[in-house]
Formats: sequence, structure tokens, C-alpha cells
Amino acid sequence: MEEKIIKAIQDEYPDDFAWCYGCGRLNDAGHHFRTGWEEDKTVTFYIPKPEHTALPGFVYGGLIASLIDCHGTGSASLALHRKNGFEPGEGEDPPRFVTASLNVEFLKPTPHGVQLKAIGKVEEIHPKKFKVVAEVFANDSLCARGEVVAVVMPSSFLRK
Amino acid sequence: MEEKIIKAIQDEYPDDFAWCYGCGRLNDAGHHFRTGWEEDKTVTFYIPKPEHTALPGFVYGGLIASLIDCHGTGSASLALHRKNGFEPGEGEDPPRFVTASLNVEFLKPTPHGVQLKAIGKVEEIHPKKFKVVAEVFANDSLCARGEVVAVVMPSSFLRK
Repeated sequence: MEEKIIKAIQDEYPDDFAWCYGCGRLNDAGHHFRTGWEEDKTVTFYIPKPEHTALPGFVYGGLIASLIDCHGTGSASLALHRKNGFEPGEGEDPPRFVTASLNVEFLKPTPHGVQLKAIGKVEEIHPKKFKVVAEVFANDSLCARGEVVAVVMPSSFLRK
Repeated sequence: MEEKIIKAIQDEYPDDFAWCYGCGRLNDAGHHFRTGWEEDKTVTFYIPKPEHTALPGFVYGGLIASLIDCHGTGSASLALHRKNGFEPGEGEDPPRFVTASLNVEFLKPTPHGVQLKAIGKVEEIHPKKFKVVAEVFANDSLCARGEVVAVVMPSSFLRK
């Protein structure tokens, strides 16, 4: 059964920040990762496309790294937005984060053809810097573990 | 000026191992990363596609992670192949590696629209396990640094 996030933080990013190949809703060719709360954890679902293989039958590691990356920045945005008093769907622009570092351990081959679920725990390590520990499951089996350090996007990042 | 690898290790992977979305020559939809020797360093070039953006004007971090990932497994394969007495182009099947762990530090926003160059140093840490330290440059500017631990692919990985 395909599960979906109802209220995703990426749905709320201002248009200028919605072009990410991983999670930008305006990037037609991208993955459209969407991240939301599940109680105090963050969750992103994704069904890899047929071409996202490492070998036939297994998911490409770079896609798993991409999922963890955008899950991390989305989770950090959810956390700071909540700290500021807001939830997705309330019409307030959330803060946008960029990735400072990304670590992924590939624990076992990830089966292709099923929905992946990334589950994150967010920790504030500085008012503008959050650490997200993520676990990626396929069929309830833990396949990869990751850690993202995400920082509030510097204003210099936006070229007009 | 676009630079290209003449003799890439990925050109030599057996057909069964050439379906990787990152570096498989038989994966029509993939990135087709190709990795070769430049003296004692390994090199992979890639020009991101228009959709591979984080924000307009900057490269998506997940793509950089993917580049480092396949650059890592390709570099490990090059190194073990050389240790075994072979170079790409000599017609001998090289060993195929999988990624055990991937770490990426994003040092600065990576400009979009130019060719990226990943440069790797390979170190054997066990007869079947290699560490690859990679630096990714855009316009000769260091944008990301990564580390891949790659292990010889277990035979269980291949479903027939």
C-alpha cells in the first residue's frame, strides 16, 4: 500500500526555493520528496523509479543518499518552523535549509520495487543548525542509516 | 572545454554489473559517470543536467553525493584492478565494488552550468575494502569533499 504525507514542508517553501531536484515541487523532472511530521518523528516516502537501480533488483545508493539529504533539510525546516510556532498548512513560509554534511551507511542491499520510508529524529545543535538522524526502511527492514547537518540557507545562496 | 575520460573502468564492468543509475553504461536513463586514472589519482567528470539544481544556478547536493559515490566505487575498482596487474582497456573484467559508507561535506554552493571534476585518492584498508577520498571541483574551485568506503561486491548481490 502506498503511504503519503498529507502536509509536507516542501509544499510550503516559497517559489524561489522550490526548484530542488530532490524535493522541489516546481522541478518537473525531480523526485518530489515530501517530508512531514509523524508525531515527533519526521517521515519521507518514496517509490524509486525503474531506472533507479544499482543492480537489477536493488536501489541505487545515490538515490538513497539523495532521499536522506532532502529528508534532512526538510526535517530541519519542520523542526525550526515548529519551534517558531507553526505547522505545515498554516500558510506561513518555513525556513529553508541547506546541507552542510551528509553521511550514509549502507547496511544492506535495498530491494527495488517497494516504497521506501525515511524516518528522522531532529536535534537542534545551534539556533541555525540542526542535526537529523535518518533511517531508511524497505518493507520494514532497515537498509540505510544517515546523518545530515543542515544549516539555515545563507541569503547569498539566492541569485535574483 | 569539456574533458573526458578515455579509458573508464565502468566501460569494462561485466554486463550484469552495468545497470547502475549513476555509472552503468547499460542504464539508458542514468548519469553515465565514467572514472579513470590520471597518474596516481582517479578522475570523474560530469556536466549536470539543467534539472539538477538545488536552487537556480546551483547544483543539487544529491547529485554531488551520487557523483562521489560512483567515483568511489569506480576508483576502488581501478585500484584493485591495477593491483591485480590490469588497466582499463586490456579486456580483463575488473572487480565490482559496492558502497559501505558515503560521507560528503558541502564546502560551498556548487555553480551550475559547468563541468564538475571529482579527483580521488585510493587507499587499501583491507584486501576487499578500499577508502576513497574525493574532492569535487567546479571551475577549479573546491566545492565538496567526500569519503567513500567501498567493498568488493558480495556474490549474494547478484540475482539471476
